[in-house]
Amino acid sequence: MLRTVEWRNNKLSIIDQNRLPAKLVYIELGSVEEIADAIKTMKVRGAPAIGAVAAAGLVVAAIRSSAQTPVELSRAVEAAADVIRSTRPTAANLFNGIDRIVAVLRRNNGRPVSDVIGEMSAVAGDYLEEDVRGNQRMGRYGQELIPDGANILTHCNAGGLATVGYGTALGVVRAATEAGKSVHVYADETRPRLQGARLTVWELMRDAIPVTLIADNMAASLMRQGKIDCVITGADRIAANGDAANKIGTYSIAVLARAHNIPMYIAAPMTTVDISVPSGDAIVIEERSREEMTEIEGLAIAPKGARVINPAFDVTPAELITAIITERGVLRPPYSESIARAAGV
Amino acid sequence: MLRTVEWRNNKLSIIDQNRLPAKLVYIELGSVEEIADAIKTMKVRGAPAIGAVAAAGLVVAAIRSSAQTPVELSRAVEAAADVIRSTRPTAANLFNGIDRIVAVLRRNNGRPVSDVIGEMSAVAGDYLEEDVRGNQRMGRYGQELIPDGANILTHCNAGGLATVGYGTALGVVRAATEAGKSVHVYADETRPRLQGARLTVWELMRDAIPVTLIADNMAASLMRQGKIDCVITGADRIAANGDAANKIGTYSIAVLARAHNIPMYIAAPMTTVDISVPSGDAIVIEERSREEMTEIEGLAIAPKGARVINPAFDVTPAELITAIITERGVLRPPYSESIARAAGV
Repeated sequence: MLRTVEWRNNKLSIIDQNRLPAKLVYIELGSVEEIADAIKTMKVRGAPAIGAVAAAGLVVAAIRSSAQTPVELSRAVEAAADVIRSTRPTAANLFNGIDRIVAVLRRNNGRPVSDVIGEMSAVAGDYLEEDVRGNQRMGRYGQELIPDGANILTHCNAGGLATVGYGTALGVVRAATEAGKSVHVYADETRPRLQGARLTVWELMRDAIPVTLIADNMAASLMRQGKIDCVITGADRIAANGDAANKIGTYSIAVLARAHNIPMYIAAPMTTVDISVPSGDAIVIEERSREEMTEIEGLAIAPKGARVINPAFDVTPAELITAIITERGVLRPPYSESIARAAGV
Repeated sequence: MLRTVEWRNNKLSIIDQNRLPAKLVYIELGSVEEIADAIKTMKVRGAPAIGAVAAAGLVVAAIRSSAQTPVELSRAVEAAADVIRSTRPTAANLFNGIDRIVAVLRRNNGRPVSDVIGEMSAVAGDYLEEDVRGNQRMGRYGQELIPDGANILTHCNAGGLATVGYGTALGVVRAATEAGKSVHVYADETRPRLQGARLTVWELMRDAIPVTLIADNMAASLMRQGKIDCVITGADRIAANGDAANKIGTYSIAVLARAHNIPMYIAAPMTTVDISVPSGDAIVIEERSREEMTEIEGLAIAPKGARVINPAFDVTPAELITAIITERGVLRPPYSESIARAAGV
């Protein structure tokens, strides 16, 4: 299985996703600055993947700090946590990953520095492993919803590349395939950053799962022709009521799916659920640079000085979501109840 | 006013739209081959514009043929008509423009060659002038539907660049501005060929009409936020029942507009109406090359060998269209009646 985030011998490596699909290159992230830059510039992206990088990244920060005392260690890690927290605002997993490691630090307050770092490193390792195992469980639950022969629409990349490995939405696709079902994926190219074209198509082709690339504006027409049986996407933050923030365009698909009576599934780990947020209205939507809209690898595709907007995400209201597939099972409406139960609150 | 198609002294020139927005360049089309190539490769695009090029193009073909006899002339023009007809299948105007000139040829069967060419040239000139005047009338009718302060969503380019001049959907926007209304346009970039980003934004900026570029997948989210007051697009072929083929993604917007209770207007000249086609099901949808999806100006944006689809158009069913704005007035449902009345059948 392709690993997007590696954590071995206290070294953190990632696939540089800005090099895909042309080149599969791993890079080591050896400092807080490199980690923050990798998240901001989307060398690593996908809510679960950046959560994992943030968790392991704090251990890198701890080691790099050369802290001699518990106070120095605490100061260094908390400062690194602040830097990494400020990279991107929307994905719940980023904050979850940081909180998990900061909790280890605080719980072990006063213990010898090396012991605390050892503990942090072990928890970060577990966090990454649990991401993969959780995706596999999610896949097994989710694939039961997929009919044999299904044509599945997905948006952006919620695959192995968006996680530590295996994937959320594409994990469900993989599990359906492993269960012997024949499925075919339509991958929205996902403007402006083309994660569908660059990443989803790449990773499905690599696994020999049939995939067809479409422009984002083609999905509706396919739905009308009866060529899409279900939609599965990932999510970046799920509110307590089931409203889900995900890559810009997901809401569009959800409205279209409803209009064509097509089920709309979200596949996401519980680390994406943020029960402190009552509804989608309270989710902060990142606005990214204008150049993502007006240029592709430096090539201008719009007039100089064009006014643009570039929200990275939108919010799909719970009422448009048929089910939320998690590693703890398939959650159904009313989500305020099923989410609270799954979250154990 | 910017002229996209020029017909002067029996010379046919167009703006090469593949050079925009970087460069505004006119090129002369001096042979049937150049005309067919310009249409196929979309140096000229937009249903009314290619209709105009086809009409004038037949005169170019007649002159270039050096026909000495009526029979030779007839043979040359009919052959040219066949070549130009086969360039692109969907836009009704292409066939309308050809039929108009072929009718002149046939009507004048047996007259001296130079007289027939003179007649064809005059009719082609009228055809182009009527396109511009028709757009201006369409604009005056259509702008009455636009509230002052409106935020208007448009898709692809149905502007001056899609016509001989002034535009259909953007003609309505221009007329609203000329009527003293303050309007703002959201322009879908319109993948894969980016006509919205490259052409619509360019021509509106040139006229100082406020415009904001968005990715195709952002419109739904803006609608949900109440930021879009109406949608206006052009059309490539309108069936007798009001079903309208237009740039891929138009159907998507129409479904989204309906879900958000936003009016959806189509602006198109009567040359786009094809009453011989009973409904949208019978409209041929062009499938274009895979490279339009996988490359941008030669730059690969998807893995090598990726399977793609690339339908250039989709069909919006009449029931999703609030009104069809034409140079003969604003047509309302039931369209089978209002279209027949406007077409004089």
